[in-house]
Amino acid sequence: MQKISIDQEKGLASWAREVQQSSIQQLLGVATRPDILSFALGLPAATLFPSADYARAAAHVLSTDPHALQYEPPWHPLKQHIVDLMAMRGVFCRVEQVFLTAGAQQGMSLLARLLLDVGGAVLLEETLYSGILHALEPLQPAVLAVPTDPETGMDVEAVASFLAGPNRPAFLYAISDGHNPLGVSLSPEKRRRLVDLARQYHVPIIEDDAYGLLHYEQEMLAPMRALDDEWVWYLGSFSKILAPALRVGWVIVPERFIPALSALKEGSDINTATFTQRTIAAYLDMGGLPDHLTHLRREYRARRDAMLHALQATFPSDARWSVPHNGMFIWVKIPGREDMEKILEEAIQKKQVAFVPGHAFDLAGCFRSLPCMRLNFSNCDTEHIEQGIDRLAQVIREVR
Amino acid sequence: MQKISIDQEKGLASWAREVQQSSIQQLLGVATRPDILSFALGLPAATLFPSADYARAAAHVLSTDPHALQYEPPWHPLKQHIVDLMAMRGVFCRVEQVFLTAGAQQGMSLLARLLLDVGGAVLLEETLYSGILHALEPLQPAVLAVPTDPETGMDVEAVASFLAGPNRPAFLYAISDGHNPLGVSLSPEKRRRLVDLARQYHVPIIEDDAYGLLHYEQEMLAPMRALDDEWVWYLGSFSKILAPALRVGWVIVPERFIPALSALKEGSDINTATFTQRTIAAYLDMGGLPDHLTHLRREYRARRDAMLHALQATFPSDARWSVPHNGMFIWVKIPGREDMEKILEEAIQKKQVAFVPGHAFDLAGCFRSLPCMRLNFSNCDTEHIEQGIDRLAQVIREVR
Repeated sequence: MQKISIDQEKGLASWAREVQQSSIQQLLGVATRPDILSFALGLPAATLFPSADYARAAAHVLSTDPHALQYEPPWHPLKQHIVDLMAMRGVFCRVEQVFLTAGAQQGMSLLARLLLDVGGAVLLEETLYSGILHALEPLQPAVLAVPTDPETGMDVEAVASFLAGPNRPAFLYAISDGHNPLGVSLSPEKRRRLVDLARQYHVPIIEDDAYGLLHYEQEMLAPMRALDDEWVWYLGSFSKILAPALRVGWVIVPERFIPALSALKEGSDINTATFTQRTIAAYLDMGGLPDHLTHLRREYRARRDAMLHALQATFPSDARWSVPHNGMFIWVKIPGREDMEKILEEAIQKKQVAFVPGHAFDLAGCFRSLPCMRLNFSNCDTEHIEQGIDRLAQVIREVR
Repeated sequence: MQKISIDQEKGLASWAREVQQSSIQQLLGVATRPDILSFALGLPAATLFPSADYARAAAHVLSTDPHALQYEPPWHPLKQHIVDLMAMRGVFCRVEQVFLTAGAQQGMSLLARLLLDVGGAVLLEETLYSGILHALEPLQPAVLAVPTDPETGMDVEAVASFLAGPNRPAFLYAISDGHNPLGVSLSPEKRRRLVDLARQYHVPIIEDDAYGLLHYEQEMLAPMRALDDEWVWYLGSFSKILAPALRVGWVIVPERFIPALSALKEGSDINTATFTQRTIAAYLDMGGLPDHLTHLRREYRARRDAMLHALQATFPSDARWSVPHNGMFIWVKIPGREDMEKILEEAIQKKQVAFVPGHAFDLAGCFRSLPCMRLNFSNCDTEHIEQGIDRLAQVIREVR
């Protein structure tokens, strides 16, 4: 019997008919090869995970909690820990506003589906985290694209213009600190202006704060959620401060939206893994997170500085980059070098080093980041950062 | 400053504006109260979880695998274990067809979003697992509703009539074994007929096999996926055979749809928790699952039989139920008793016992299950089953 494929029958949902594997997914296979020095993915350093403490917490939970492996309602003690963590971040919220998710990515996906009808409008930066685009793809939104600057971030006056226009976006997506991929943090003035605009036009901001607690300078700015609890919907995550393989994050939203979020989450995956929720809470009960964060900040700051020094020492003299105060990424621009995909190919094949070409983060139709690269500085230790940047500089010189 | 709520502004996606907390969610709060004997939720028995073995597996993984807490591609050894498990189930598949999900519920949600455009048609039974409705709710489908029978399951000739009609459904959702909520398993003839119809009309079947490995009779029928690898898209889960709090399941689909599924999954929650994937694989490496399954089947069969005996001894003489060969549920009909919500309220308040009224599983506009109740027999031990059914029978007699 001859098989007729369902896609020939146009049997898939319309968004799915032309889907292609994302460049990040294609890279994931290569960049995790053990012989590759990877500055590509947003990987925390595996050597810095508090594995032994986490193992103690897991063993404790499994030996003392008979419901640890059962379907259970969201774990209140974990939500209380999150409220405390948010206070460290300068945000005051209540347990009733905290909703647990399978990482910030799920929070993003759920909020997008909660706020956006298929074909509706959203307001996004021209260069941004590709995960929000993957979350939006099935909703096929109309994108209102605002320019963004590697030094100062989102162009808030362009936001104001769009909001004054006829096409109301369902939301605005923003990263206040340690922007992925640009590394930039927004000024206090921009934060206030964005919150004022959200209030004025009744358009919520989805604030992605995955990197907020990874700050490397004396001063930590509070996220926009600290300025408004109605129009700023906050995404937090344990992925970068504890470990990504746990897949636990949270959203903070006005309490009255929790039932709709719960319905959406239940239909999506029932709930966030009980065992993981309780193990994270047990880990946090042990009280080691503040010291762990201090340790992470010190280590990542050293890695950031090693990368900045190596760039200064080896990269072309016209290359430009900024100094990220938060997060995991340095954004490099080399004027005239729009051959980043070729550079990447050569870098992987000949020098076993990887990064992400900036253009991978441009909205469709935007080519602003062609001469740019995103470099992750959290994954490799300082010695490998020096080696890798040196190799990358060689490739940049050699590829022509 | 006066707050204006976003819902007054109609700021939510259209599906979300009238969302209500599901009856299952409302029950979850009550039915997990320690003083309640619950026949309500689809809970496996927490006392039967292999917690000690799982703890050993987790400790082993955390102490030996430096990537256990990192973002990583799906774990090939776990997929290979799933291929082996499927062979036990009578299904032959390849690793390349296996896609890991956060439980079968996520598989359901992803496949629905992959196949169905907003407002498209789906073919569903009139009485069915409410989780598929939660997964579908944001897609606002047109439902082609086929009758289903507590004794024989889905009316396959009604399916044939719909498929011959003008409105092509994106898929048909079916449970071959241990139907939730009816407890019924489909005959070999119905399985073959459904597969033939799927092939003939090019409409995929989403086969939910969460209960397939929990079978209590000598003969185990293979699921529909064993008959066709192109038109039957299979959902499997570790929730019922290992533990639900792990949130790991799988789908088996033709290999060419994996990239689109991967894109959807990446946008939804990036990936399934690496640590959990590797711990389940390590648990399966230990080789104890077949014995654990034998133990589960023996225990759950004893609980099923205890419930059947208790029903026979205490329920009204005109009550009817069938003997499930698989799964966790007995479906009871008491002719004329359409006051099941009242009975539930009294049962919880006065007798500390819970169940789910059958009508909670009816499609909107269908009232066929008003005089029915779904009883879970896996959660309580036999002694509590006897006590609980006796108490429930008292409530049924007393409420008028």
